[in-house]
Amino acid sequence: MKETRQHLEALRDAMRSVNVDAVIVPGTDPHQSEYVSDHWKFRDWLSGFTGSNGTAVITLDKAALWTDSRYFLQAAQQLEDSGFDMVKESIPGEPTVEQWLVENLDEESVLAVDGRLFSCVEANRLERFCAENGFMFVTEFFPADSIWPDRPARPVAPAYVHDEALAGETVDSKLERVLATVEAADADAMFIASLDEIAWLFNLRGSDVEFTPVAIAFAYIKENDCNVFIDKCKVTSEVAAHFKKYDVRVRDYDDVIRFLERRSEHETVMLDPNRVSDTLANAMPCMKVYAASPIVEIKAIKNEVQIEGTRRAMERDGVALVRMFKWLEENVASGNINEVDVWTRGKQERARGENYRDDSFAMICGYKDHGAIVHYQADDESAYTLKPEGMLLVDSGGQYLDGTTDITRTITLGNPTDQEKHDYTLVLKGHLALSRVKWPAGLCGVNLDILARQPLWNEGMNFLHGTGHGVGHFLSCHEGPHSIRMQQNPAPLEPGMIVSNEPGLYKAGEYGIRTENLLLVVEAEKTQDFGDFYKFETLTLYPYDLDLMDCSMLTAEEVKQINDYHEMVRARLTPHLTPDEAQWLATKTQAL
Amino acid sequence: MKETRQHLEALRDAMRSVNVDAVIVPGTDPHQSEYVSDHWKFRDWLSGFTGSNGTAVITLDKAALWTDSRYFLQAAQQLEDSGFDMVKESIPGEPTVEQWLVENLDEESVLAVDGRLFSCVEANRLERFCAENGFMFVTEFFPADSIWPDRPARPVAPAYVHDEALAGETVDSKLERVLATVEAADADAMFIASLDEIAWLFNLRGSDVEFTPVAIAFAYIKENDCNVFIDKCKVTSEVAAHFKKYDVRVRDYDDVIRFLERRSEHETVMLDPNRVSDTLANAMPCMKVYAASPIVEIKAIKNEVQIEGTRRAMERDGVALVRMFKWLEENVASGNINEVDVWTRGKQERARGENYRDDSFAMICGYKDHGAIVHYQADDESAYTLKPEGMLLVDSGGQYLDGTTDITRTITLGNPTDQEKHDYTLVLKGHLALSRVKWPAGLCGVNLDILARQPLWNEGMNFLHGTGHGVGHFLSCHEGPHSIRMQQNPAPLEPGMIVSNEPGLYKAGEYGIRTENLLLVVEAEKTQDFGDFYKFETLTLYPYDLDLMDCSMLTAEEVKQINDYHEMVRARLTPHLTPDEAQWLATKTQAL
Repeated sequence: MKETRQHLEALRDAMRSVNVDAVIVPGTDPHQSEYVSDHWKFRDWLSGFTGSNGTAVITLDKAALWTDSRYFLQAAQQLEDSGFDMVKESIPGEPTVEQWLVENLDEESVLAVDGRLFSCVEANRLERFCAENGFMFVTEFFPADSIWPDRPARPVAPAYVHDEALAGETVDSKLERVLATVEAADADAMFIASLDEIAWLFNLRGSDVEFTPVAIAFAYIKENDCNVFIDKCKVTSEVAAHFKKYDVRVRDYDDVIRFLERRSEHETVMLDPNRVSDTLANAMPCMKVYAASPIVEIKAIKNEVQIEGTRRAMERDGVALVRMFKWLEENVASGNINEVDVWTRGKQERARGENYRDDSFAMICGYKDHGAIVHYQADDESAYTLKPEGMLLVDSGGQYLDGTTDITRTITLGNPTDQEKHDYTLVLKGHLALSRVKWPAGLCGVNLDILARQPLWNEGMNFLHGTGHGVGHFLSCHEGPHSIRMQQNPAPLEPGMIVSNEPGLYKAGEYGIRTENLLLVVEAEKTQDFGDFYKFETLTLYPYDLDLMDCSMLTAEEVKQINDYHEMVRARLTPHLTPDEAQWLATKTQAL
Repeated sequence: MKETRQHLEALRDAMRSVNVDAVIVPGTDPHQSEYVSDHWKFRDWLSGFTGSNGTAVITLDKAALWTDSRYFLQAAQQLEDSGFDMVKESIPGEPTVEQWLVENLDEESVLAVDGRLFSCVEANRLERFCAENGFMFVTEFFPADSIWPDRPARPVAPAYVHDEALAGETVDSKLERVLATVEAADADAMFIASLDEIAWLFNLRGSDVEFTPVAIAFAYIKENDCNVFIDKCKVTSEVAAHFKKYDVRVRDYDDVIRFLERRSEHETVMLDPNRVSDTLANAMPCMKVYAASPIVEIKAIKNEVQIEGTRRAMERDGVALVRMFKWLEENVASGNINEVDVWTRGKQERARGENYRDDSFAMICGYKDHGAIVHYQADDESAYTLKPEGMLLVDSGGQYLDGTTDITRTITLGNPTDQEKHDYTLVLKGHLALSRVKWPAGLCGVNLDILARQPLWNEGMNFLHGTGHGVGHFLSCHEGPHSIRMQQNPAPLEPGMIVSNEPGLYKAGEYGIRTENLLLVVEAEKTQDFGDFYKFETLTLYPYDLDLMDCSMLTAEEVKQINDYHEMVRARLTPHLTPDEAQWLATKTQAL
């Protein structure tokens, strides 16, 4: 019997002991993080499923886990024999969590959650749902604290200061800008739970979460009264001095709830109901202004120092990729390289670059049909050995002190078929069309998204993920508020924002193609009659695969765009390469 | 002194007599109509401004009128010396109505409106605004009923039945579909105030509003208890028999409020808070479900009979345009034709067509710089005499019993300049790109809008109106819920919807260009991996102007698209033309 079966039964014992009929266990932490440290991987412990998006729901005799299309394959494998059924999110015919609960619970059943892991918005939604269906809703059920004997401790890695020379703005200046929006919202203070917001605001970084350089903390900020709640073991003397310099009081992480309980009822606190947990919001006896965090928007617009840093990081990233792909090309015929080796080599090459701290996410390296699994993670068991044929999709990125990178390239390892070239070129055409768009100020990603998809739509194909996500500066590889998607999102694209451009095409059982660059929104033109126009500057520096292009499908404009880009890549990377590497890059970037 | 000055002072006397400090007078009627009959043109009487969108706000010593960019020129002229300042809507730096009121009113001022002319949503918004600013808000101020001595009576034109053979669906079937959504929303009944919803639901038409064949009425529908409130003089024996056939009780228009006041408090009534007035909604003592009217969505999706009827109406419309433009071309050199003559001739040619009832809006016929005034209305005073040079923009449409048309063509009257051809071709390229798009089911207008604009954006230009609006079937020329715009709108484009495709370019003082066809959403392809794809069928049948095309700017794909369209236009119209007309059309549609 699977070990997790015992965990599931332990949970059910705990449920029975307090008369709970159903529990929802999300995959997040008290900061509503997308990626969490092991201390909060209770859902993984319970179900065996390790994906970044998954919600487990357990009753006394049933259990199910909801996840999205990225993880259907992985979840099916990991949940085998676990007692959990997999439910596919957003797939017609599959139940929502709510529908499933209505189906499986009697009236007057008790639904319980750990309210620290649910945002105000989520908890309110569940409360309404329970009221409408005659269930009781309880937010004080904390089984992870009691039934998980070998629970990992909270991480203890030291935090560190992100140099102002790299961040481009002082903590004072950031506090002033944020507190101005707090005041404009008629609030006295703001409570912050999101780790990347805290990291940005205080020019603070940490190593508590893989791939995202954040320290686990909360913050409560007010004119002349700023407080950060963080495990003391993380506060090095450098960090302590930094906080002192900006008059920020350091308090213990676990003191946050008592601190919030002591807020005066005459105080008005602003908080983002999607980013602060129900438990902490309810702990405050003060008045509240619920509003989208102003930090998300402010942080998304990079300053000149961050932009210039990111440009330099892109050069180091491009050099690392030249070295990795050159090594791969020269050694693939040996039959000694598998998908995991590419991952390892990529990390090594990036690590040679100045300012490198970590990868920005787990490399996706998918050969042949593995490339069609959108978030495929190779391991020693699954890894294909590479041969000089077929296509390889590599999606990877680095966390450099001066910028975060994220790039996908699909290459042929030899003898590309006409179909592969056709499909690669379709994806490339969409990627190029989005890169060269010029648009009037005020528009959003949804206004531009079609450009990346239209070549596929014309042939009755599509890709079912977003076209672009925001990217932080030595922070989260995914950040808002903007995006480029088919779905509507009211956040306009503003100069200084970084966004990915990553159309793809996935043929299950055959191959996957994705081409991704990071783009910077910049001003293009000021007009008298029609206002300002914006365009993209491409930040990422690595050539597309010339061998996969069907040139008969490319317009003259597209050929010029490719040649211009390749010329820039060559000019920017060559100074950092050996003559041998430079020669290799020259052949990879020769004009069409 | 202007006559309207006396009207304004009469209003102020009325305000003083009941201690009202400010009044908002909108341009709508108790049905929230965009176009209203003279009986409700109180704002026009008061200010002299006759545009379809304008809101007047009057205090005891100031008055202002808000309108949108379509009417800036007209409003500036009509408001001269009127005592009203024009305020430009949605222009940075111009105040909103609320900002203006805050500026011009003291605390504890009384703001009054005629609640019958404000939707629930608008009235709620104003109520909140008043509460926040210490004003009193009153919704029972009806000056139009007392101070407007020569107020036109409500229109008395007879209503008539829209033949089921043209509507394609019986009243029973429509009632059943609508009442099913009412039941699904846990309501017992639905109250309807929108004239086009009532016209559609009961297969009823009328002549109470110019250009839109509706009869002024309200409706209250419930399983086995359907009521229409309409002036008895409109109910012909045909209409009475029709209502009787479907068990619809006819009640007097003025009885609606008493009827609503008598609703049982155990009854739950559904109503659209954007389409029912504050006064009528508040009259009902029953429970209410506020929801977007399901009729809007149901009505937007045309059935096969409506679609086939519209296709036939388009043929008649194209024939009328061939005759009008041929006449214009052959007579422009005479110097005897002005903009109004084109309007008159167009109406005459349309009227020759079977099933014609009216134009679907006031023709916009703008020569040279008049074309740059987006909603220019020529009159005997303003009309330019046409000469064999420069561009003419003609936007017009017809109301046929079997369909509503709306088409814009811009033509050269001789010697087009390179700049004119360049600009015309840019607009045409956008129009063509939108026409030929194929997209996955579920998307909205905002996903496609860029296609119509991108050629302009590339040159730092744009047009500041929507790209496309829904169109009714022998009903409103503008209908929802869908649209194609830069702004986000959550209504997806569904097969059976009709939408316009009308990019333009306006150079103030020089010329305006717009090219508009109506499109039908149809299924394009069913795929296994990516679901259904949709595309557009072009309904409108009239050639683009070959003489205005800069062929060097057209791709081979665009040339083929133009040639294919022109071939279809020729094939569909020629059977209805004289040999002479057919010959003329042949030259206008020859292959590029």
